[in-house]
Amino acid sequence: MKESIYIIKIGGNIIDDDGLLQDFLKKFAAITDKKILVHGGGKLATRLAAQLNIPQQMVEGRRITDAETLKIVTMVYAGLVNKSVVAALQSFQCNAIGVSGTDGDLIRSVKRGTEKLDFGFVGDVQKVNSRFLLTMINNGFTPVVAPITHDGQGVLLNTNADTIAQAIATSLTDHFDVNLVYSFEKKGVLLDVDNDESLIPVLDPVLYDKYRKDGKIFAGMIPKLDNAFSAIAAGVKKVIIGKAEELEVLVSGKTGTILTNEEHAIN
Amino acid sequence: MKESIYIIKIGGNIIDDDGLLQDFLKKFAAITDKKILVHGGGKLATRLAAQLNIPQQMVEGRRITDAETLKIVTMVYAGLVNKSVVAALQSFQCNAIGVSGTDGDLIRSVKRGTEKLDFGFVGDVQKVNSRFLLTMINNGFTPVVAPITHDGQGVLLNTNADTIAQAIATSLTDHFDVNLVYSFEKKGVLLDVDNDESLIPVLDPVLYDKYRKDGKIFAGMIPKLDNAFSAIAAGVKKVIIGKAEELEVLVSGKTGTILTNEEHAIN
Repeated sequence: MKESIYIIKIGGNIIDDDGLLQDFLKKFAAITDKKILVHGGGKLATRLAAQLNIPQQMVEGRRITDAETLKIVTMVYAGLVNKSVVAALQSFQCNAIGVSGTDGDLIRSVKRGTEKLDFGFVGDVQKVNSRFLLTMINNGFTPVVAPITHDGQGVLLNTNADTIAQAIATSLTDHFDVNLVYSFEKKGVLLDVDNDESLIPVLDPVLYDKYRKDGKIFAGMIPKLDNAFSAIAAGVKKVIIGKAEELEVLVSGKTGTILTNEEHAIN
Repeated sequence: MKESIYIIKIGGNIIDDDGLLQDFLKKFAAITDKKILVHGGGKLATRLAAQLNIPQQMVEGRRITDAETLKIVTMVYAGLVNKSVVAALQSFQCNAIGVSGTDGDLIRSVKRGTEKLDFGFVGDVQKVNSRFLLTMINNGFTPVVAPITHDGQGVLLNTNADTIAQAIATSLTDHFDVNLVYSFEKKGVLLDVDNDESLIPVLDPVLYDKYRKDGKIFAGMIPKLDNAFSAIAAGVKKVIIGKAEELEVLVSGKTGTILTNEEHAIN
């Protein structure tokens, strides 16, 4: 049996709330298994853009990233958020190292094509350098990854943090039993978005297909779940989706939505 | 004989000029010895502060760093500048990894006392984690260090990049023959600041003392040189001060000002 590793994505709403963030980071630091944190930037980038009078345009939850906006997300994600998170983790005795996708050539991406829509400096993940991650992890460091990648030609690109978490998880399946955790402000995948009691505890591809056809899972949840199921298809052992505030229970698999490839594998 | 390493500090004026910066980074990438780059932030932080209407106060070239200014320097130094430099180095086949002092607990600092003047979130270097640097270097990575440190309690601190370069150089003397290079827009230490022909090729402590008493070396150069001589006293083999545009010649010791502890050691 391989050693376990947890790839944990922390959602934007938690980043925006310093109290919730500190609480989450304390729980993250306490996880004794090997682990990697992937974060987004929350609303800080949008706020800074507003202060600098740089108009922002979002399409289906994705930010159109012109040259000025690229500077802003690089500053906010790879600078302010990443270093604040690392400093907090260090204070909780977790030997974190903050990186973006350009550091150690961790994540190569390709600038998204402009056929449908010009997203600007947005990159789609091409390759994760798992050797770099293994070097960090095997030397006792906990990588904290900001969602900025590069094209290998000197250009930084803004990249979706959910996708980065999935790509990192997938890249490590030869070396670890990989658990991918998407933690955010909700209990998990809900049948009724306003009712925590409607949590789906286990989701397999057949059930997912059914719920989607019935229109019970929709909008923003679909790309997240497509991402998660492709991670599982690529060898990730388990994907858990749930509330950041319950991280320690979430990691144990006792709450949230667990995604699996096997029907009824978990009760 | 120990292996050589170059700790190279790149000054602010070069950071501000993209053409000069790219040229410098290409030359830096071409250095075949082990190497570490330390950078400042140039005028970008001042410019961003102005755009955000956050008044800046400089005392003897040091920035008073209130809470809002700390966010700005963290974004600019550890985010925009650090990641842009790393992406460029990656494109020049140098496997750079950008870090601040909080990453891997690289540089612990203490918030400067407020007896004389309250500098705000400014930290003086307390301890460099050379084990972290050795792990990076021995695994083939080139560290690129942004001048943001931490106090171990979760607080980021703004720290002078010249001092960081000196502290890193000093921390590695047990493992390497350390060469510390301060590269900036001038030819080296000049007797007449406006005349490149007045370059002092070699400076030892006796000569330094004499020039200082004669008032020929003054102002901003004094803390830089005090820093440099304390590095030499602590076991750094050579300190070279000179023009960033001539990096490859500078590194060979054939131009710039060379600081040594031995009188007339170098002709």
